Amino acid sequence: MMVAKVFFVFFISSIICVCSNAQQKEDSIFIKKIYNESLTNGKAYTDLHYLCKKIGCRVSGSKQAQMAVDWTNALMKSYGFDTVYLQQIEVPNWKRGKKEKLYVRLLNPNKEVKDPFINMTPKITALGGSVGTNGKLDGDLIEVKSFDELKALGAEKVKGKIVFFNIKMDPTNIQTFKSYGGCVTQRVSGADEASALGAKAVIIRSVTLADDDHPHTGSVRYEDSVARIPAVAISTQTADQLSAKIKKGFKANITLELESKWLPDTISYNVIGEIRGSKSPEKIIAVGGHLDSWDIGEGAHDDGAGCIHSIESIRLLKQLGYKPNNTLRVVMFMNEENGLRGGKNYASIAKAKNEKHIAGIESDAGGLVPRGFSFEKKQFLDVAKSWAQLFKPYNIHYFELGGSGADMGQLSKDTDGALIGFVPDNQRYFDFHHSEADVFENVNRRELELGAATISSMIYLIDKYGFGK
Amino acid sequence: MMVAKVFFVFFISSIICVCSNAQQKEDSIFIKKIYNESLTNGKAYTDLHYLCKKIGCRVSGSKQAQMAVDWTNALMKSYGFDTVYLQQIEVPNWKRGKKEKLYVRLLNPNKEVKDPFINMTPKITALGGSVGTNGKLDGDLIEVKSFDELKALGAEKVKGKIVFFNIKMDPTNIQTFKSYGGCVTQRVSGADEASALGAKAVIIRSVTLADDDHPHTGSVRYEDSVARIPAVAISTQTADQLSAKIKKGFKANITLELESKWLPDTISYNVIGEIRGSKSPEKIIAVGGHLDSWDIGEGAHDDGAGCIHSIESIRLLKQLGYKPNNTLRVVMFMNEENGLRGGKNYASIAKAKNEKHIAGIESDAGGLVPRGFSFEKKQFLDVAKSWAQLFKPYNIHYFELGGSGADMGQLSKDTDGALIGFVPDNQRYFDFHHSEADVFENVNRRELELGAATISSMIYLIDKYGFGK
Repeated sequence: MMVAKVFFVFFISSIICVCSNAQQKEDSIFIKKIYNESLTNGKAYTDLHYLCKKIGCRVSGSKQAQMAVDWTNALMKSYGFDTVYLQQIEVPNWKRGKKEKLYVRLLNPNKEVKDPFINMTPKITALGGSVGTNGKLDGDLIEVKSFDELKALGAEKVKGKIVFFNIKMDPTNIQTFKSYGGCVTQRVSGADEASALGAKAVIIRSVTLADDDHPHTGSVRYEDSVARIPAVAISTQTADQLSAKIKKGFKANITLELESKWLPDTISYNVIGEIRGSKSPEKIIAVGGHLDSWDIGEGAHDDGAGCIHSIESIRLLKQLGYKPNNTLRVVMFMNEENGLRGGKNYASIAKAKNEKHIAGIESDAGGLVPRGFSFEKKQFLDVAKSWAQLFKPYNIHYFELGGSGADMGQLSKDTDGALIGFVPDNQRYFDFHHSEADVFENVNRRELELGAATISSMIYLIDKYGFGK
Repeated sequence: MMVAKVFFVFFISSIICVCSNAQQKEDSIFIKKIYNESLTNGKAYTDLHYLCKKIGCRVSGSKQAQMAVDWTNALMKSYGFDTVYLQQIEVPNWKRGKKEKLYVRLLNPNKEVKDPFINMTPKITALGGSVGTNGKLDGDLIEVKSFDELKALGAEKVKGKIVFFNIKMDPTNIQTFKSYGGCVTQRVSGADEASALGAKAVIIRSVTLADDDHPHTGSVRYEDSVARIPAVAISTQTADQLSAKIKKGFKANITLELESKWLPDTISYNVIGEIRGSKSPEKIIAVGGHLDSWDIGEGAHDDGAGCIHSIESIRLLKQLGYKPNNTLRVVMFMNEENGLRGGKNYASIAKAKNEKHIAGIESDAGGLVPRGFSFEKKQFLDVAKSWAQLFKPYNIHYFELGGSGADMGQLSKDTDGALIGFVPDNQRYFDFHHSEADVFENVNRRELELGAATISSMIYLIDKYGFGK
């Protein structure tokens, strides 16, 4: 009996094992097809070229943002998606002015030098959303290296000054997004914190790990409780030069001119393309990136790559003749950078329609070589880990808990689906981020194609197996 | 009794477990220090800058190769290595000539066009080691896409022709080195194969996955059995243009001028730096890269990065006050590219001296973001896998069987030590390889620093724990 039982268990295990091996082999073969198709006949690179070079940077409310809406709409139709439609939203409409000028006069503490002044006119960029200066704004510069230092100075020393936030990104975190999170508050909240103490404007050190000569923009956030003051970024090299002079005792006096301004909100769109599910069309696997970008560079890594990853991941499955069980949906979110209106609207419409998301995957971490995925919940991570072996031949090894992204993350309150972030390598990401260096030339063809194939493979597995109950 | 035994086993296990956890914590803390030091105070980037910009490309026998010998010798001394010395070797001495010219005349098969000729003067590079043309060499071009195609043509059709090898690298291998291996034979053996059938010269498609406009060089190998014929590379874009014309029926006639030549062998050196082991100084953990490079570009990824990785990996340990049990040795190999004389001599001297290598680690796969290590033998791989968890926070996930490298690999016959290859990401590697694009600017600071820290951490673990018996 014992022997029979052991044999039976062995027998059943063998069947499961055979099925599982056969399935794994089938999956392995299909995933290889996805990668091969992407690397040999992929459209990702030429599509990203169009988005970056024929359209360019795409700040919310701009002509280029509308061009990107029209183009991705047409593109998904041209790829034979079953349905492509727009979700109308209102977006903020901030415009960078023509004039962005910073004049710095440094007074040498050593009065015996022949010419006690050093003049600098470093490159600057208004932070996205900054108010203008309404003519010229003059004042003395005061450097701080932390919010605590600012608070310790107090209103007495800050009033009427221009505050120079010179907080460096920590190079020792391997996950560069962690260092970004620890440093970006100077950009987001620096203006309000300084304004609360009576400052007239803020200049921030660009939030990047690169030692470079061009400023990186990004949003400044104003609360209604304090006066809105202009906010600009300088490059890390300029920040270091300026700081070195201040350390030597130079007094810095600056003149700032910014013509940036806010126009009334305007109409824009999320762009949605779908391939209808054959078995459970009401169940959705969504994948997306954000179509808007900042208004310098070309939004190539942020987030042209994520948009193209998303479209291409579904196109690849269609091209290979895969018939999905569930509806596969691409979402081109609008306005991630300065309002999240696209993500918020998408989530609220999904809730109103009672849409069932099995998964929402976001690609908004650039187009560098893929590493894996982060999962907002352990239950989904655990299932995905059971697929990890299928990804190993592609050097996809990262399956960890973590956020999905700013847009898909909006679904979190009202979905029991899996929210997943695509994770490319991020060592170089902040070299480009929000700067003139975020251009097509800094995206590598193979790395982009591997990213699209990786996401496509994950969608295939989710569509085929789901996440259990 | 049974209970007591179980308790005893449990007790012993607990002790082992506690030790192991404490050790793992200590290792984890020390490895974090290594990465922090590299990312905050590392010398890798400035050292690579010097090697690339102050010295430049370093083909064996050149003035720059000697400068690199002198500089790395002085550098390791300046870092306080206990011993730094040279191993004298004889190296081949091939010189690229001043003149490298290819004229292509394409005759339109449609005789009704006004001007039936198209002239091209594409950029070329002599393959390393190619004989010159001794004046102008003229002939008709014949394209082949495989060695089989060449053989099928036979001597009758090949005699007196210039053979154009147009074999593409396979984009579907995720490990790009595999595609390189499958494609590089046209460069290494194409000349001999064509010469055996009476060809006068060969032109090869650059061995790269990039769609670029500059040729990639690399060695051609001549056997004594056939006449040596000139061999040059054209860019992948030129190869595609030329092939498209030939497909349309154009006849291609070319004139080639090459002044490259061989001089007598000359003297050069491996450079060796050591930190003496405190417990077992006779046991050696070696790490190295090759100091020579091709004579275009700056040898930044190939193999400036590997040289700097090696020096920096040991400098970091010294800087952190680590006292090694075994002797840590850096080897700057000379002449990897066209002769392997450095690697061969190193191995034969090691054998003659009966040196005991615990491990030989080679970094000769570029300075891109680190992935892990390959091991020539499973017994060492298995030990290293037990350390994998310590590397996980640094995204180091690749521990597989594979080669160490061309230089350290020379030890394989006579060592029972572990031969290990450092494995950085390789998706972009062949974009730069052996070309004018292999310059300092194409190496990312953080990626280089992470590579050095990764190798340093592996050396620390090997030094501390060894590989067992």
